[in-house]
Amino acid sequence: MTKTQARLDLQRRKRLGMVEAIWGEHKSIDQIAEILKKLQEAQELALVTRIDPEKARAIKELFENAEFHEKARCLTLGKPAKSQKSLGEVIVVTGGTSDLLVAAEAELALRWHGIKTKIVLDVGVSGLHRVLDQLKRLKKAKVLIVCAGMEGALPTVISGLLSQPVIGVPVSVGYGVSAGGKAALAGMLASCAPGLLVVNIDNGYGAAMAAIRILKA
Amino acid sequence: MTKTQARLDLQRRKRLGMVEAIWGEHKSIDQIAEILKKLQEAQELALVTRIDPEKARAIKELFENAEFHEKARCLTLGKPAKSQKSLGEVIVVTGGTSDLLVAAEAELALRWHGIKTKIVLDVGVSGLHRVLDQLKRLKKAKVLIVCAGMEGALPTVISGLLSQPVIGVPVSVGYGVSAGGKAALAGMLASCAPGLLVVNIDNGYGAAMAAIRILKA
Amino acid sequence: MTKTQARLDLQRRKRLGMVEAIWGEHKSIDQIAEILKKLQEAQELALVTRIDPEKARAIKELFENAEFHEKARCLTLGKPAKSQKSLGEVIVVTGGTSDLLVAAEAELALRWHGIKTKIVLDVGVSGLHRVLDQLKRLKKAKVLIVCAGMEGALPTVISGLLSQPVIGVPVSVGYGVSAGGKAALAGMLASCAPGLLVVNIDNGYGAAMAAIRILKA
Amino acid sequence: MTKTQARLDLQRRKRLGMVEAIWGEHKSIDQIAEILKKLQEAQELALVTRIDPEKARAIKELFENAEFHEKARCLTLGKPAKSQKSLGEVIVVTGGTSDLLVAAEAELALRWHGIKTKIVLDVGVSGLHRVLDQLKRLKKAKVLIVCAGMEGALPTVISGLLSQPVIGVPVSVGYGVSAGGKAALAGMLASCAPGLLVVNIDNGYGAAMAAIRILKA
Amino acid sequence: MTKTQARLDLQRRKRLGMVEAIWGEHKSIDQIAEILKKLQEAQELALVTRIDPEKARAIKELFENAEFHEKARCLTLGKPAKSQKSLGEVIVVTGGTSDLLVAAEAELALRWHGIKTKIVLDVGVSGLHRVLDQLKRLKKAKVLIVCAGMEGALPTVISGLLSQPVIGVPVSVGYGVSAGGKAALAGMLASCAPGLLVVNIDNGYGAAMAAIRILKA
Amino acid sequence: MTKTQARLDLQRRKRLGMVEAIWGEHKSIDQIAEILKKLQEAQELALVTRIDPEKARAIKELFENAEFHEKARCLTLGKPAKSQKSLGEVIVVTGGTSDLLVAAEAELALRWHGIKTKIVLDVGVSGLHRVLDQLKRLKKAKVLIVCAGMEGALPTVISGLLSQPVIGVPVSVGYGVSAGGKAALAGMLASCAPGLLVVNIDNGYGAAMAAIRILKA
Amino acid sequence: MTKTQARLDLQRRKRLGMVEAIWGEHKSIDQIAEILKKLQEAQELALVTRIDPEKARAIKELFENAEFHEKARCLTLGKPAKSQKSLGEVIVVTGGTSDLLVAAEAELALRWHGIKTKIVLDVGVSGLHRVLDQLKRLKKAKVLIVCAGMEGALPTVISGLLSQPVIGVPVSVGYGVSAGGKAALAGMLASCAPGLLVVNIDNGYGAAMAAIRILKA
Amino acid sequence: MTKTQARLDLQRRKRLGMVEAIWGEHKSIDQIAEILKKLQEAQELALVTRIDPEKARAIKELFENAEFHEKARCLTLGKPAKSQKSLGEVIVVTGGTSDLLVAAEAELALRWHGIKTKIVLDVGVSGLHRVLDQLKRLKKAKVLIVCAGMEGALPTVISGLLSQPVIGVPVSVGYGVSAGGKAALAGMLASCAPGLLVVNIDNGYGAAMAAIRILKA
Repeated sequence: MTKTQARLDLQRRKRLGMVEAIWGEHKSIDQIAEILKKLQEAQELALVTRIDPEKARAIKELFENAEFHEKARCLTLGKPAKSQKSLGEVIVVTGGTSDLLVAAEAELALRWHGIKTKIVLDVGVSGLHRVLDQLKRLKKAKVLIVCAGMEGALPTVISGLLSQPVIGVPVSVGYGVSAGGKAALAGMLASCAPGLLVVNIDNGYGAAMAAIRILKA
Repeated sequence: MTKTQARLDLQRRKRLGMVEAIWGEHKSIDQIAEILKKLQEAQELALVTRIDPEKARAIKELFENAEFHEKARCLTLGKPAKSQKSLGEVIVVTGGTSDLLVAAEAELALRWHGIKTKIVLDVGVSGLHRVLDQLKRLKKAKVLIVCAGMEGALPTVISGLLSQPVIGVPVSVGYGVSAGGKAALAGMLASCAPGLLVVNIDNGYGAAMAAIRILKA
Repeated sequence: MTKTQARLDLQRRKRLGMVEAIWGEHKSIDQIAEILKKLQEAQELALVTRIDPEKARAIKELFENAEFHEKARCLTLGKPAKSQKSLGEVIVVTGGTSDLLVAAEAELALRWHGIKTKIVLDVGVSGLHRVLDQLKRLKKAKVLIVCAGMEGALPTVISGLLSQPVIGVPVSVGYGVSAGGKAALAGMLASCAPGLLVVNIDNGYGAAMAAIRILKA
Repeated sequence: MTKTQARLDLQRRKRLGMVEAIWGEHKSIDQIAEILKKLQEAQELALVTRIDPEKARAIKELFENAEFHEKARCLTLGKPAKSQKSLGEVIVVTGGTSDLLVAAEAELALRWHGIKTKIVLDVGVSGLHRVLDQLKRLKKAKVLIVCAGMEGALPTVISGLLSQPVIGVPVSVGYGVSAGGKAALAGMLASCAPGLLVVNIDNGYGAAMAAIRILKA
Repeated sequence: MTKTQARLDLQRRKRLGMVEAIWGEHKSIDQIAEILKKLQEAQELALVTRIDPEKARAIKELFENAEFHEKARCLTLGKPAKSQKSLGEVIVVTGGTSDLLVAAEAELALRWHGIKTKIVLDVGVSGLHRVLDQLKRLKKAKVLIVCAGMEGALPTVISGLLSQPVIGVPVSVGYGVSAGGKAALAGMLASCAPGLLVVNIDNGYGAAMAAIRILKA
Repeated sequence: MTKTQARLDLQRRKRLGMVEAIWGEHKSIDQIAEILKKLQEAQELALVTRIDPEKARAIKELFENAEFHEKARCLTLGKPAKSQKSLGEVIVVTGGTSDLLVAAEAELALRWHGIKTKIVLDVGVSGLHRVLDQLKRLKKAKVLIVCAGMEGALPTVISGLLSQPVIGVPVSVGYGVSAGGKAALAGMLASCAPGLLVVNIDNGYGAAMAAIRILKA
Repeated sequence: MTKTQARLDLQRRKRLGMVEAIWGEHKSIDQIAEILKKLQEAQELALVTRIDPEKARAIKELFENAEFHEKARCLTLGKPAKSQKSLGEVIVVTGGTSDLLVAAEAELALRWHGIKTKIVLDVGVSGLHRVLDQLKRLKKAKVLIVCAGMEGALPTVISGLLSQPVIGVPVSVGYGVSAGGKAALAGMLASCAPGLLVVNIDNGYGAAMAAIRILKA
Repeated sequence: MTKTQARLDLQRRKRLGMVEAIWGEHKSIDQIAEILKKLQEAQELALVTRIDPEKARAIKELFENAEFHEKARCLTLGKPAKSQKSLGEVIVVTGGTSDLLVAAEAELALRWHGIKTKIVLDVGVSGLHRVLDQLKRLKKAKVLIVCAGMEGALPTVISGLLSQPVIGVPVSVGYGVSAGGKAALAGMLASCAPGLLVVNIDNGYGAAMAAIRILKA
C-alpha cells in the first residue's frame, strides 16, 4: 500500500490559540506515537484524549516525558502553557460522581492551556439544596461548564439562577432511555432556561475549548 | 359491508371505579354519537377526550345535556360523580401556560370522578423561586400531577423536594428536539429523582386515573 | 488535579423518607468505597444498585458488614429499616424468568425500607390462564409493580383487571425490536388501560421508591 | 417532457391469484383514471386503496360503475370475484372503533376476492372479558386478522389463546409514543406469543392478501 | 429473598400444538436447568433457543439426553415429535451464508415438531439468476420462510414471483444502516409485494411456529 | 432591520459546470424573485426546484419567459443549454407512478443541462418480468438513475444485473415504516449489490448533477 | 374550572439581564394578551417569538404600541433597551436565504437588548469563496451566531478559521434526512472543529441570549 | 440437519466486471474456507473484507497463497487483476487518521481490480488550508472517494470545489451523536453541494465498486 502519513494542523495554536487534541480512541499505538513524534519535533504541546490505560502505558514507554491522567483518561506530552489567570476562572460542575471522567477531561484541557479552573462535584437537582448552597461559589466563575447525565436538568437549573455563560455537557452515564447520554443531550437542547449552550455528549475537551474562546472574546 | 357496532366496556366503573373515556380524536361524529347513546341508555357518565370544537358542536346539537370544556378539549354528558373529598386532594402543576390543555384534561377527569383538585400554573424551573414559593401549597396534596414540555425538568425538581407520589406528564409543546414531547418524556423517565412516575405524552386523563387508583389504594 | 469529593444528600431520608441509592454501574471501587464510608459515618443505611460481582467482592473485603444480593445485583450496608407492615403489601410481578433481576432489585429496595413485599413469577400474557389464576393473590396488594420485557403487555392486562395502582417496569430483555427494552417501554406508555404508571427501563429501585411514596400518601 | 405511461402488472392475477391494488394516496386523479382505463380495457377488477372522498368523487364521474367504500377509504371498479366460500372464513378483529378504517380495508379486499369474511369490533385487552366472550366465535375462522393501535397487545393475547394463523396489523391511531402506530408495530414484532405474523402499519390490504395466500396454501 | 420459581405453560402444546421454547439468552444455567427439569418431569419436549456453547455444555453435563445444535445455537431435550409429513413442506431460504444461524433455528424448530423442511442457501437478489434457478424447487413448498439481512429484498422478490405464504425473517447481519437488522425489517414491512408476512429480527423460532399455524389451518 | 441580500454563487457554472438550483420550498415569492432577477442580469439560466403551483404562478406574472413544469414541480427561466448528446444518455427509472415527481425533477435538470435523457416508468420488483423486459433498453444508458419508494429494492436488483453506474433515489411515498422514504433510503444504503450509489430522499436534482459529473469524468 | 393565571418571572431581567420571551406558538391570543398586559403594568419590555401574522394582527389591535417583525416572526411591545455598544458586536451568519427567519429572530432579540448586531447572508460552504471573502468582516465580531440547515457544515468551517466564540444554530429547512433540522443539529454537535457551541434547532432567541451572557462575562 | 452449501455468484465478474467480495465479519472460519476453496477451483480472485486478524491467521494456514492486509482488515487469494491504468486514477481522501481503515479497504479493492489509486490523508475541514493545499493534486483524479467520520463535512467542501464525481463514505468513528457514523451519513446525504454521492457507513469496498462502474461508463 502507498505509505500514508498523518498531516498535522500545526498552525492551529497560532490561528485559534488552541492545542490540537489527538483523539486516542480509534487510533493504534503506532498512529499515536507517530503523531506525538511530529508534535515533539515541532515543539508543540500534545494532548491525547479518550485513551485507555493500556495504550497510555505503551506510549509512556516510548516518550519519557509523557504523563497519563487516569481520571481524565488523557495523556499529555510537554508542559502546560503558562498561567493565563487574568482571563478569569472556569468552574466545572458535575451532577454526580459518575460524571467525573468528563469533568476531569475539561479541567485538564483548561489547565493545560493555562486557564484557572476547578471542579465542583455532586451538585444534584434531586436534592436542590446541593445546588443552592454552591451558588455563591459558582457566581465567581467567568464561565461555567456543567456536566450531567441521566435527565441532564442541572445546567437548566443553573442557567436560570446565574447570568454567566453556561456550557452544558451531556454525559453518557445512564441506562434505559438515558443510556449513551441521549436523554441528557435532548434535555439540555430543549431547555427552558435562556441561552444555555451545549456540546456533544462526553465532549469535555470541546467544552474547554469553547470556554477559552469565551474568555478571550 | 357487515354492520359493525361498538361494544362498550360498561363494567369498567364497577371493576375499576373509573369511567371509560371515549377518545375523540380518531372517531367520526357518527361513531361518537353512537357510543354516547349507548352510555346514556346504560345511565353511565360519558367523558370524550381530545375532541375538537367542530365535532363538539355537532355532538351538542344531538345531545342537549352535553357540555364542551374548551380549555380541556373535552366533552361530557351527565353530571359529575358526587364529591369524594375525603380521599384527599390532587394538585395539577404546570411548567408554563402552554401546558394548560393537558393540565385541564387531568383536572376535568378528576373533578368528574368527584375528586378535589386544582391547577397551579407557571411553576417553571428556569426561575426557581417560582417553584420554591409554591412548596407549602403543594405539600397539602395527596398526589401531584406535574405537566411539563420542553426539557421536562419540573417533575424531577419537585420529586426531589417533596415526598408525595408525583406523576409526570410530558407535554407535546416544543420545537426542534423537544417537538412532540419526546425530550420531556425521556427527561422524566431518566430522572435522577427517586420514584418519579410517568405516563404517555399529553395523557392528562391517564394521569388522573392513576391518581384515583392511588387515592383509593 | 484539584481534589474532588462526593457530596452526599444525607438529608434525603428525612426529607423524602427514602435511602439514597448509590448507582454502582459507572463508579469505580474507590468511588463507591468513599461514599460508603461517609454513609457509615453518618450512620445511614446504604444500598448500591447495578453493581457487578467483582466490584461487590472488592467492597466486601473493605466493609465487613456489607452484603451482596446476587439475584438483585445489589450490595447493602447496615440493617434493613424496621418493618412498616401496616403500610400494606407491594407485590412484584414478572412476565418471565428473564425479568427476575429487575424484580429482585425492586423487592430488595422495598424490603430494605421495611415494606412487606413478595415476587410472583411467570405471569405471562401468552398463556392467559397464568394471569387469571393469580388475580385473587394480586388483589391483596396495595400496589403492584409489574416487570415485563419483549412487548411488555402484562401491565396493560393487569391494569384492565384490577383497580390498584400499577407501576410498569420495562425490562431490557429481548432481541431485534425489543432489544434494550424500548418496545416494552413504548407498549406500557401507549397502554389502552387507564392509569398505568411507568418508570425507566430496568428501574426496579425507582419503582420501589414510587411504591413507598404511594403507601405513605 | 417525454410522455410517460403506467405499465401495469396485468399478469398478477394469473401469477399470484391477487388483484393488483392501486395505491391512491400519492397519485393524481389523472394518473388513477389512466390506470383504471387500462384495467377496464383488460377486463380486470380494480381496487384503489387509500383514496380520499374528493378524488373518489372525481373518479366516479369518469367511470359510471365505480363504487366508493367510504369506511374503507377504497374505490372499486367492476364486480367482486365469485365466492370462494370453500376456502374458509377470515375474521377481522379490532381493538377499538378507531381501528375500523384499516379493518374495513382488509374486509373489502377479502370480499372482493370472493373470500368469506366479517369484522368483530372492540375486542379490547383493557377489558379482558371482551376478548374472552368472543373466543368461540373467533375459533371458527381459518385465519385471524387482528388490527390494533396504541400498545397493540391484542394480537399477542389472541395468539396465546388460539392456534390459527394470526396476522397483526398495527394501526396508526394514538398520540405521544403511539403516534403513527410505531409502538403497536414494535409490540407485535416483540410479542411473546409464538408465531404471530405482522404486516406494515395500516396495511389492511396486505393482511388480506397474506390471508388469501394462507387459505390457498 | 422469597423463593421464586418458574411457572411453565405446560398446557401450551395442547392449546396451541406448539412446544414452549425456552429463551436461553438472558437466563442463567441454574434457571435453564430448573425449567428443563420440570419439563422432563412433565414428559414434555424442550427446545432452548439462543443458547451459547458454554451454557449448552454445562447443561449437557446435567442432562444426559440433551443435544446441542451448534449451527442453530439451540439445545433440545427428548425426541422430536413424530413426522407430520402430510401437512406439507416448509422451505427455509437464505440470502447469504451469514443468515444461516437464523435459518437453522427455524429448520430445527420445524423438524422438532415433525414438519418436513429443508434449507436452500444463497438465494441472493444481487445475482438474480440465483433466485430464478430455484423457483421450481421453491414452488413445491406449502410455506416459505425467507431469511435475509442487509437490505432484506429477497422476500419481496420471492413474494412477487410465487403465490404461497411467505414469512420474511430479517437477520441482524450488516453494518452501518443495516446493523442489527433494522434496515432489513423495514424493507420487509414496506414491501411492495402483496401479502408478505414478517416476524421479529432473527426470530427463526417464531417463523417456524407461524408456519405450523398455517400448515394446520 | 439591516437590509439583507442574497449573495449568489455565480461562479458555479464555470467551476462545476452546473447551474445553481434555487430551492423554492422554504423561500417566499419575494426572495425567489430577487434571486431570479440577479440571475437574469448575470445572463444565467435559472432552475427553481420544489416550488408549488401558487408560487410558480406569481413568479410567472413577474417574469414573462419563466416556465412552470408541473410534473416536476420546477420553474425555469431562460433556454436549456445546448445539447451535449455526445456525453451519452442517462435513463431515469421509476418503481411506480407515485415516484414520477422525483423522476421528472431529475429528467428536467438533465435536459436543462443539454443531457440526453428519458424516463422509464413502472419497473416494479414485485412483478419481476417488468424489470427483465426493460434490461436491453436500460443497457444503452451511460448512467442509470433509479427512483423507488416503499422498500426501495429496485436499484439493488438493477445493480445486480447491469454494470453501469446506478444512482438510487429514495422516494418519500409510503406509509407506516416507509413514510417519508426512510425505509427506501436504508434499503439502498444497505444494498447487497456492489457499488450502488445513493442520494438524499426525493433528491432528483442531486442525482442529475451526480450523473453529469460522471458523464464528464 | 378553577381560574388559572399566568405567573410571570418578572425578576428575570434583574437576575439574568434578559427579557423573558413569550413563546407564541402554542398560546392562544387571549393567553398572549393576558401576559402582555401584565408586562405592560410592570413596565417591562415584551418579546413574543414564533407568532404567526394572524395572531400578531389580533394582538396589535389590542395593544397600540405593539410592533410585528414579519421576517423574524416576532412581536414586541415597548422600546428596545438603550444601546450597549461598548459590549461589542455580534454577527449573525446564514448559510442560505432559507435560514433568514431564524437569523432575524436572533438579530431582533439582540437589538432589543441594545446589542450591536448585523446579519451576513448566504455564506455557503458549497461555494467556499463565499466564506473566505467574508472572513475579514467576521473577524470584527466578538461573538458569531451561525445559522445553517441541510448538513449544517458552515459553523464547523468558520470555527476552524476564526478564534471567537461560535454559536451554531441548526435550521429546520431541508427534506429527506435533513427535514426538521436533525441532520444539521447532529453535524454541529459532532463537529471536528474545537469548541463549537450549539443550541436547539431554530432557536435564534436562545443563541442571542447566550451571546449576551458571553458579552457580559 | 440437511447439508447446506454456499452457492457462489461465479458469473459476477463476467456480468459486472467485479470480483464478488466475501464479507468476513459474520462468517465462521469454516464457512470462509469453504467459499475460498470453491473460488480457487473456479480460478477466481478472492477478496474477504471485514475479517479480523485471528480469522485471517487461521485462513492463511489453510491457503498458502492467501495474504492478509492488516490496515484494510482484508484477506486476498490470488494475484491482482492486470493494470487498467488507462481507465484513470481514483484518489481516496480521508478526514483524519482514524478513517484509514475504511480508506485502505477502498484502496485495496481498487488495486485488486487493476485500478490506479492512492490515499491522501488528513484533509480536515477544521483546518481548511489542509483541504486547499491538496486541490491541485485531487484535480488529477477521475473519481474521488472521500472518507470522513464525525460531522462528515469534508465531501461537501470538496464537491463544492471540484467537478469530478465524489463518493462520500461515512466512517463509524465518533462518540455521542457521531457514534457509529450516523451523523456523518446524514451530513453527506443532506449536503448542500450538488451531486455528492453516498454509500453505507464504512463501505470502502462499495465505494470502490462504484468508482469502477464510473471509470468504465
